[in-house]
Amino acid sequence: MSDALVCDTLWSGARLLTMADPKVPDALIENGLVASRDGRVVYAGPADGAPDFAAARTIACGGRLVTPGFVDCHTHIVYGGSRALEFEARLAGASYEEIARAGGGIVSTMRATRAASEADLVAQSAPRLAELLADGVTTVEIKSGYGLELGAERRMLRAARQLGRDLGVSVSTTFLGAHALPPEFAGRSDAYVDEVAQVMLPALASEGLVDAVDAFCEGIAFSPAQVERLFGAAEALGIPVKLHAEQLSNLHGAAMAARHGALSVDHLEHLDDDGIAAMAASGTVAALLPGAFYFTREEKLPPVAGLRAAGVPIAIATDCNPGTSPMTSLLLTMNMAATLFRLTVAECLAGVTLHAARALGRNDIGALVPGKWADLAIWDVTAPAELVYRIGGRPLHARHWRGR
Amino acid sequence: MSDALVCDTLWSGARLLTMADPKVPDALIENGLVASRDGRVVYAGPADGAPDFAAARTIACGGRLVTPGFVDCHTHIVYGGSRALEFEARLAGASYEEIARAGGGIVSTMRATRAASEADLVAQSAPRLAELLADGVTTVEIKSGYGLELGAERRMLRAARQLGRDLGVSVSTTFLGAHALPPEFAGRSDAYVDEVAQVMLPALASEGLVDAVDAFCEGIAFSPAQVERLFGAAEALGIPVKLHAEQLSNLHGAAMAARHGALSVDHLEHLDDDGIAAMAASGTVAALLPGAFYFTREEKLPPVAGLRAAGVPIAIATDCNPGTSPMTSLLLTMNMAATLFRLTVAECLAGVTLHAARALGRNDIGALVPGKWADLAIWDVTAPAELVYRIGGRPLHARHWRGR
Ligand SMILES: [Zn+2]
Ligand SMILES: [Zn+2]
Repeated sequence: MSDALVCDTLWSGARLLTMADPKVPDALIENGLVASRDGRVVYAGPADGAPDFAAARTIACGGRLVTPGFVDCHTHIVYGGSRALEFEARLAGASYEEIARAGGGIVSTMRATRAASEADLVAQSAPRLAELLADGVTTVEIKSGYGLELGAERRMLRAARQLGRDLGVSVSTTFLGAHALPPEFAGRSDAYVDEVAQVMLPALASEGLVDAVDAFCEGIAFSPAQVERLFGAAEALGIPVKLHAEQLSNLHGAAMAARHGALSVDHLEHLDDDGIAAMAASGTVAALLPGAFYFTREEKLPPVAGLRAAGVPIAIATDCNPGTSPMTSLLLTMNMAATLFRLTVAECLAGVTLHAARALGRNDIGALVPGKWADLAIWDVTAPAELVYRIGGRPLHARHWRGR
Repeated sequence: MSDALVCDTLWSGARLLTMADPKVPDALIENGLVASRDGRVVYAGPADGAPDFAAARTIACGGRLVTPGFVDCHTHIVYGGSRALEFEARLAGASYEEIARAGGGIVSTMRATRAASEADLVAQSAPRLAELLADGVTTVEIKSGYGLELGAERRMLRAARQLGRDLGVSVSTTFLGAHALPPEFAGRSDAYVDEVAQVMLPALASEGLVDAVDAFCEGIAFSPAQVERLFGAAEALGIPVKLHAEQLSNLHGAAMAARHGALSVDHLEHLDDDGIAAMAASGTVAALLPGAFYFTREEKLPPVAGLRAAGVPIAIATDCNPGTSPMTSLLLTMNMAATLFRLTVAECLAGVTLHAARALGRNDIGALVPGKWADLAIWDVTAPAELVYRIGGRPLHARHWRGR
């Protein structure tokens, strides 16, 4: 047909969740069609009434569920070493003190990460990232924060970029120099924050390695005042910020981050009503991390009802990290968000697509609408609820990143 | 060499966990060798000092961890239909009553199972079983209990046997006619127990479909006295028994089952000291099911310390079922047993090998020692703790069932 629209790939026969309308993330199109050109969506909607496409390739989805590719918006997936033996020792009765004395805890990951070359970090992290991708992930955020010195932080962020190229996944890099106080700065946390804000951040940003700046705001880490100095430095460079806050206590970090227009504040078990209101006012995403909640046997639940009532967008993420969430499945994260936090199926789906994209400040992903990247996942299920309901399943049929 | 021992397959360069000694399930042989002949282990131990083998096939394990194939000793993996939409409705606020009125709950699974042919059941269950196998499972127990009438129970058990042949996995079948009261027997539970014990059990046993007999002993299901009548019928046929008990309340079912020499009693959150003592005396395995504990948000923990102190062997299993544990990962079960129940790494490993085999009355599997089946799993890890520590990973490198 002479007036057919030319496209690269056509996905036909899809039960399609486009996530085009955030108010009804689970609106299902029974006989859906997606078309891509140059890696971007040119059409996603009902086959009935769709334009006439001439495609170089047509993929018959056979009635399978098709969703936007998933976005894991909070991971620490790049690191050196393993904490499995520490986990074993703790189960066998070792105290945190004994483990720290034996060189365990975050310092052990810092040491192994500092000792690793960039290639080592890529090699050790690639299998973890491959597991995430097997759950339909097409975009992943990766934080630094185990180097805690310029060279090692740089290697982490460069490894993150390299992994994106190697595995065919979009990587958003987050500089988390303010993750923990390195031993060489013991007792001098203000000096370390200055180093992070005034030396490390500008250097890494100038190398194009920093898509966002993050910090751990907690009694055992950095105070809101310290974080605010770091955020000021990020703002001066035009880099968006996000924050780990209200995980173990309420330091009112979320409200402070909201004042700085943070893309997201993450964890939030101890968030109060003022924090919710501040996040709602600034449009900041609440990124909930049920894997860490589960693994640390936390009992304080994040204020889901309050976030919902205030209209704060909720994202969910694996928080993949060696100390508190050695988890590499975003499907399992959805199940935990539903089971432990009572998120609905629709909230879980929005939490790993639309809202996760927003937590990364990305408006080019997270939904299948014209102009966004043609990142999509095809599932061996027909009902979206199956993706949340199953525990430990691997229903991915195929994954397409940027139309490929 | 003329005096080399002939074998079929030799696995070399293994970091080997044989589970030969139940007291040290995590005793690791750094440079291990396994040899099989006619599907059975002929040697499993250090390469140093091993006999000289002439093998038709040698598999170099490259220093990877090798364990006995895993045994999932409690599943309801064969069923018709899906309960995902019910899960979605409950998260959206529907009450149990509303779901029951809409035809949900176990009755919906019963209806879908009754409506399914044997081939349907095989087709619907095979993908679930394939996911279990991807975690290194070489033996799986499969219960009936969603038919609740002779024909449908038979189809379930025949489907279970067929799945074993189709997928290359040992299947132990358990007749669970006394799972729930079918609607046509409402108000006549004694009559249903008679039907199960005197009609269904003898018929299915005569067809070779019943490796063990199980029941659900609970206020919402069957009383200890009713179960005891069923156990009497099983004993008359020489069939071993097991029991779902003390999950929601303490009816002292475990002690009753122990008096009948039960292979295992399963769930056990509400087990008391008398029950522990009875199980210890009879050598009954305690099968803990952390997936159901997690999915139902149970708060009462099983008495792990008491079981440990009394020397009751502890197994762990997925309990894969559509209502309370839609879980198809035994690795994740191990992580949940450690995280939620504080089982040690060694206990988790014994719980999916040695003790799980014992829960099935099988002494031909569960450890790599001469004479047992050469069922083994090769993992892309070096430390056993990695298998328990990771959440949602899939580290299986290869799986060998009966030497193949
Ligand atoms: Zn984090
Ligand atoms: Zn069960």
